[in-house]
Amino acid sequence: MRVQPVEGDAFGDMLIDELGAPGVAEIVERDDGHIFATPAARYVAVGEEWPELDRAAVAACAGRVLDVGAGAGRASLALQQAGVPVLALDTSAGAIAVCGSRGVSDTFHGEVGELANQDQPVWDSVLLLGNNLGLLASPKQAPQFLDALAAVTSHGARIYGRGTDPYRTSDPLHLEYHDRNRTAGRPGGQLRLRVRHRRTATGWFDYWLTSADELVEVLAATPWRLEDLHHSDQQDYLAVLVKR
Amino acid sequence: MRVQPVEGDAFGDMLIDELGAPGVAEIVERDDGHIFATPAARYVAVGEEWPELDRAAVAACAGRVLDVGAGAGRASLALQQAGVPVLALDTSAGAIAVCGSRGVSDTFHGEVGELANQDQPVWDSVLLLGNNLGLLASPKQAPQFLDALAAVTSHGARIYGRGTDPYRTSDPLHLEYHDRNRTAGRPGGQLRLRVRHRRTATGWFDYWLTSADELVEVLAATPWRLEDLHHSDQQDYLAVLVKR
Repeated sequence: MRVQPVEGDAFGDMLIDELGAPGVAEIVERDDGHIFATPAARYVAVGEEWPELDRAAVAACAGRVLDVGAGAGRASLALQQAGVPVLALDTSAGAIAVCGSRGVSDTFHGEVGELANQDQPVWDSVLLLGNNLGLLASPKQAPQFLDALAAVTSHGARIYGRGTDPYRTSDPLHLEYHDRNRTAGRPGGQLRLRVRHRRTATGWFDYWLTSADELVEVLAATPWRLEDLHHSDQQDYLAVLVKR
Repeated sequence: MRVQPVEGDAFGDMLIDELGAPGVAEIVERDDGHIFATPAARYVAVGEEWPELDRAAVAACAGRVLDVGAGAGRASLALQQAGVPVLALDTSAGAIAVCGSRGVSDTFHGEVGELANQDQPVWDSVLLLGNNLGLLASPKQAPQFLDALAAVTSHGARIYGRGTDPYRTSDPLHLEYHDRNRTAGRPGGQLRLRVRHRRTATGWFDYWLTSADELVEVLAATPWRLEDLHHSDQQDYLAVLVKR
């Protein structure tokens, strides 16, 4: 009687449950059957608990800030408390509800591409925290996403994007996944994932972990260029992109 | 290109990874698509960190102890350090390896039913910690398991079994699962589960959460009777069974 999970807002449900009773795990499944759980607590962590590169990204934001993939609103809250105008955007209805209940004033439920037609103000800084350069999704989808960000941002705007170099690993399961991707004509780090929570799963989505070289390559055909790159001593980095 | 996990010793792999680098999650999937992650740290916890009922069970053990479903050997280690003779048994090869590397002297990789023919000593106390009354599996399988324990234990032996009353919940997903079970002629709390770790999953197995009444009912046809029952203020309890 094996039944698949029900498709729904597993990510938002996970944040709602973490808010209600801390200790929840975020469970992410990859399409090769790999599964991984990490504490959801990092979505509600405060500044001093963040990775150094997150703090650097938020500190560098100037002007009006668009927080893309805002999650539980940790960055939006920090900026708001510092008097910086910020809009928290997330495609998860649950995430946006959590942002609201945690006190984020300005929220938007939807995609970046849905912002442009809504008489929204123009943003000067874009945050892609929590590995959200992964939202570039794939070489094919990335230009669309970056064009959409260009359309709603000011001249000289910057994107502060947190990424992970997928190739800084010796994990055989990841290396094998990279190989399969390459065989299929995809970059090694283009993951196909879903989030699972209780009996719910998000739909499968592409999440692209790019090396710095891959990032520069995909930017070439977009209005953005890599201005600066800060690596941690792990796999993760902060990329600063500036609008040409 | 959706691929299922590879069948293997996910439980043992999880313990091995937790031993190598703490912070690992135990991910358990139910056959209705429900999934749940909890910290694997509890498998290596020491006595003062245990639930009160675990401490009570280990303190009550007398004579030679059989630790069934020993996991990472936390109870076996505590008993051994107190000078109590104990055998750690687990069907997971990885768990038994972890027991050994953590210093458990006597281990057995296999089922209880495989012990009898091996000229093993006779046990006076049996531990079923960590919810391991669930190993009763189903009304059909429980008598076999309890008979096997009777065959390797002394006259007047006791089982100290930790259980969970599945009906002390208001969680709609669990209540719905109970209903489906009853419709199919199974007790509400008879779960079908598998453990997942990285790209590996155990096979699906039955794990029966019994109420005290259900426990008494299934014991009737076995050499064991319920001698004592201690409830926590949660769903879980410690059942003391004595051999007739």
